Amino acid sequence: MLGTMQDFPLTIGMLFRHGATLHGDSVVVTLEGDHRRSATFDEVADRATRLAAGLTQLGVGRGDRVATFCWNTQEHLEAYLAVPSMGAVLHTLNIRLFPEQLTYIVEHADDRVVIVDDSLVPVLAKIAADLTTVERYVVVGDGDAAALAEASPQAEIVRYEELLDSGGDEFTWPEIDERAAAAMCYTSGTTGNPKGVVYTHRSTFLHSLALCSAGCLGVTEDDRVLPVVPMFHANAWGLPYVAWMTGADLLMPGRYLQAEPLAGLIAAERATVAGAVPSIWSDLLRFADSNPSAVDFSSLRLVPCGGSAVPQALIEAFQDRYGVEILQAWGMTETSPVAAVAHPPKGVALSDPDAIGWRVCAGRALPGVELRIVGDHGPVPWDDETMGELEVRGPWITGAYYREDSSDKFDDGWLRTGDIGTIDARGYVRITDRSKDVIKSGGEWISSVELENHLMAHPSVAEASVIGVADARWEERPLACVVVVDGADPDAEDLREFLAARVAKWQIPERWAFIPEVPKTSVGKFDKKVLRARHEAGQLDIVEVR
Amino acid sequence: MLGTMQDFPLTIGMLFRHGATLHGDSVVVTLEGDHRRSATFDEVADRATRLAAGLTQLGVGRGDRVATFCWNTQEHLEAYLAVPSMGAVLHTLNIRLFPEQLTYIVEHADDRVVIVDDSLVPVLAKIAADLTTVERYVVVGDGDAAALAEASPQAEIVRYEELLDSGGDEFTWPEIDERAAAAMCYTSGTTGNPKGVVYTHRSTFLHSLALCSAGCLGVTEDDRVLPVVPMFHANAWGLPYVAWMTGADLLMPGRYLQAEPLAGLIAAERATVAGAVPSIWSDLLRFADSNPSAVDFSSLRLVPCGGSAVPQALIEAFQDRYGVEILQAWGMTETSPVAAVAHPPKGVALSDPDAIGWRVCAGRALPGVELRIVGDHGPVPWDDETMGELEVRGPWITGAYYREDSSDKFDDGWLRTGDIGTIDARGYVRITDRSKDVIKSGGEWISSVELENHLMAHPSVAEASVIGVADARWEERPLACVVVVDGADPDAEDLREFLAARVAKWQIPERWAFIPEVPKTSVGKFDKKVLRARHEAGQLDIVEVR
Repeated sequence: MLGTMQDFPLTIGMLFRHGATLHGDSVVVTLEGDHRRSATFDEVADRATRLAAGLTQLGVGRGDRVATFCWNTQEHLEAYLAVPSMGAVLHTLNIRLFPEQLTYIVEHADDRVVIVDDSLVPVLAKIAADLTTVERYVVVGDGDAAALAEASPQAEIVRYEELLDSGGDEFTWPEIDERAAAAMCYTSGTTGNPKGVVYTHRSTFLHSLALCSAGCLGVTEDDRVLPVVPMFHANAWGLPYVAWMTGADLLMPGRYLQAEPLAGLIAAERATVAGAVPSIWSDLLRFADSNPSAVDFSSLRLVPCGGSAVPQALIEAFQDRYGVEILQAWGMTETSPVAAVAHPPKGVALSDPDAIGWRVCAGRALPGVELRIVGDHGPVPWDDETMGELEVRGPWITGAYYREDSSDKFDDGWLRTGDIGTIDARGYVRITDRSKDVIKSGGEWISSVELENHLMAHPSVAEASVIGVADARWEERPLACVVVVDGADPDAEDLREFLAARVAKWQIPERWAFIPEVPKTSVGKFDKKVLRARHEAGQLDIVEVR
Repeated sequence: MLGTMQDFPLTIGMLFRHGATLHGDSVVVTLEGDHRRSATFDEVADRATRLAAGLTQLGVGRGDRVATFCWNTQEHLEAYLAVPSMGAVLHTLNIRLFPEQLTYIVEHADDRVVIVDDSLVPVLAKIAADLTTVERYVVVGDGDAAALAEASPQAEIVRYEELLDSGGDEFTWPEIDERAAAAMCYTSGTTGNPKGVVYTHRSTFLHSLALCSAGCLGVTEDDRVLPVVPMFHANAWGLPYVAWMTGADLLMPGRYLQAEPLAGLIAAERATVAGAVPSIWSDLLRFADSNPSAVDFSSLRLVPCGGSAVPQALIEAFQDRYGVEILQAWGMTETSPVAAVAHPPKGVALSDPDAIGWRVCAGRALPGVELRIVGDHGPVPWDDETMGELEVRGPWITGAYYREDSSDKFDDGWLRTGDIGTIDARGYVRITDRSKDVIKSGGEWISSVELENHLMAHPSVAEASVIGVADARWEERPLACVVVVDGADPDAEDLREFLAARVAKWQIPERWAFIPEVPKTSVGKFDKKVLRARHEAGQLDIVEVR
């Protein structure tokens, strides 16, 4: 028996209309060095309409890929709204990828048009000669684009504002199937080629709605949302669509992602919700230490944070010193990305001493998402102890990779995340490691992440990354690579003593390397692949202490 | 181009699993006269599983209709969870309908099983002889069921607890298409036979998720939700599913819907969100006046209110005297039911003197829902002035009625609501009347609802209902039917003077009837059909003042 409900598709077009018609007075502010420009949702909606009309005039049609190579700006938001709503597919390119990865991705996705910030023209020009699928570059801003023209003479260079003027003010938005492609994003895999995830209209709408839940981010039109996390990194965690849907003002940092301009933007525009990876918040904390008068975090009510495990010390520092709630969120490009958030359970207030135990874990599944831990013999009990691989399913979780056979990444309809962890009786997931990073010592597993978290809570440690290295007796043992705080001078003995009070004795590393900084991937995560390579090449200066 | 997202259905089964696995410690409290009983979500989930197993043993299969004839109780919630999740269709019967309507509905829906509270056996027994489709009555509670057995000897009588014990603890929940029927509800039409609306798994999941938005009800697991609005009345506005999904505790009032037990329940259980029609809140306000020490509203953070227009005086009384926010919500059985809520716009606080202007209107569409006003020549401009019929569309809005041709109720994919109103530049809808209640005086429209709202703000007026009556000169003129507050004695002149400061002179009624109470429909709305009939039969004592 079928229902009588309307067959009404969940689309980004609907989300776009909602924000445009109900929240036209809300604003998008974009940071431009020493000044900020602002546009209302009405103006942005009008410009997005003209963008769709202009792209149509360029021949962009249903299903065509339109890439962006942009910072977080008003224009990038216009592309977020216009491209999927016109039936084309938005492909957000990660500007920080290595040239060969970028080239592979553009070609693999078959991008026909690339919208590029003028400040990024030099970066893109380096690979433009190899981008055979691209017919046109649409340059945002008045900056010099000669390098692109030179590198890619076969492609046409169009100015973004001229494109907006070319198509007229009217555009008839098409009807779109909710399972049609809306956007795509490639994961920068640590092995092999990057893999593409193709979001649907349905998945994006549902993800946005779920994030609006009071039990998730609870964004309303009274918020001012600052996506520091790039719009080319897993859709800026959905924050641009969430803000548009709810009518929250959007604060776009452009390319000014250093602590000083970010602190200035938060203070000047009274951001209430700001999302960024942990390293950005560590930077802001350090900046605040040395520039207390330049910082005002009092407007922030919620800081979604993820991408890598959020150190307990960071959560506590923001809570205790500024009353700012850092909310750990867990997800991947493959999960749209937000699949879980780590609010403490019912009845446990943030001020409760127990709360931190929940806040440092990966959290519980959002309504719509299901999580489980799978061991060698299938799903494990929800006992907070048994380890296995985290698997996830739901309507905004990918079920495949674009044009790639990767059935080994899926398990009976569930996505295998590659994260190793446990799950407790109430569904809280604790991730102890990436499956490739877990250290197997004498038949027992040591969590590199847990060691890192403890080390980074030491006042003299700025960053710590732990990798497994071959050991004659135990097969593998942890090597701790530590970045010390300026002016501090802890030795390995100090740190071993510090750990002794926190982890089992057999987990304490004997091998220590003090390094100037932890190498990072293009999205800011600790790059253990590089650390391992340096270790194998004998480039790390190792102290052994037993 | 299709996306790579998982083809994962939105179902009540998923919602059920979510609450059961993540929020097993939350509780459902049911009021039983002078005591309250409580069960955890874990226990309720276990019992719902056994209910599904038991119903399956009775032969209930995919698509079969299982009706409920119950108050708001834990057992009714168990049916809400089990029946759709097992693939059957939950049909909530309105216990207050007239016998011939009820008989029509049960037969029209083809209900095979009816779950009935023992306290309601006498009501159901009156029509049971005519219910030819019903094979079994499942009686909740130990009360006498002899009357049912007598009226319907061909049907089997089963006790609810015995049914739960009969099927075992295990049940394999089936996979269900999200567009399959999950539940149904009939609207008690004012003309013709009641019409059935069949909700899908998809529509119910989406409606529940949308209500969790911070910009709507913002329910979280820290809430304690009291659905006073019956679960047989438009799904108790979705509150049971919202609470289950978020892990909010549920407070079930059973059959104790009078002001005194409700006030007691709110105070004793510290309800935070309580939904009821305006007349219930008026009752509570009056009760509070005479029993101040029996009332404690301090736990209430939000009171969703709808079903009929919420009087401004009621909103202000709760705000000013108790700091309780009444949130007007608009919807119909056909819209799941919540389609719009009347939060004031961005930047307007509840304490702002302007806020009330927004709070008394029907509100703005939730994300996912679209509203428009259609006049004689199509959609009207969003100017807050042009009147027409409100139309609505979206994924939780009905597109048809069950086994009934009613194409006149739909307009190019939009549901025609029968409400007359305006819409402003930001999408706020003001409903001025039901299309059948609007008064056409000398070519101009007079809103009966507006006059009622003003009259009910007069300190001596308890209730007021305005109907159009024939007038030789103006075609139609308003007749104000007024219920005065105990002990007050306003005359028509007083009330005309009161209105003179509030509406245009030509809108002020000349005809007045002072009546002991306004007749109500089975769902508690002013029943103007009855008033009109009384007027035509000459039963109203009319004072004419000019």
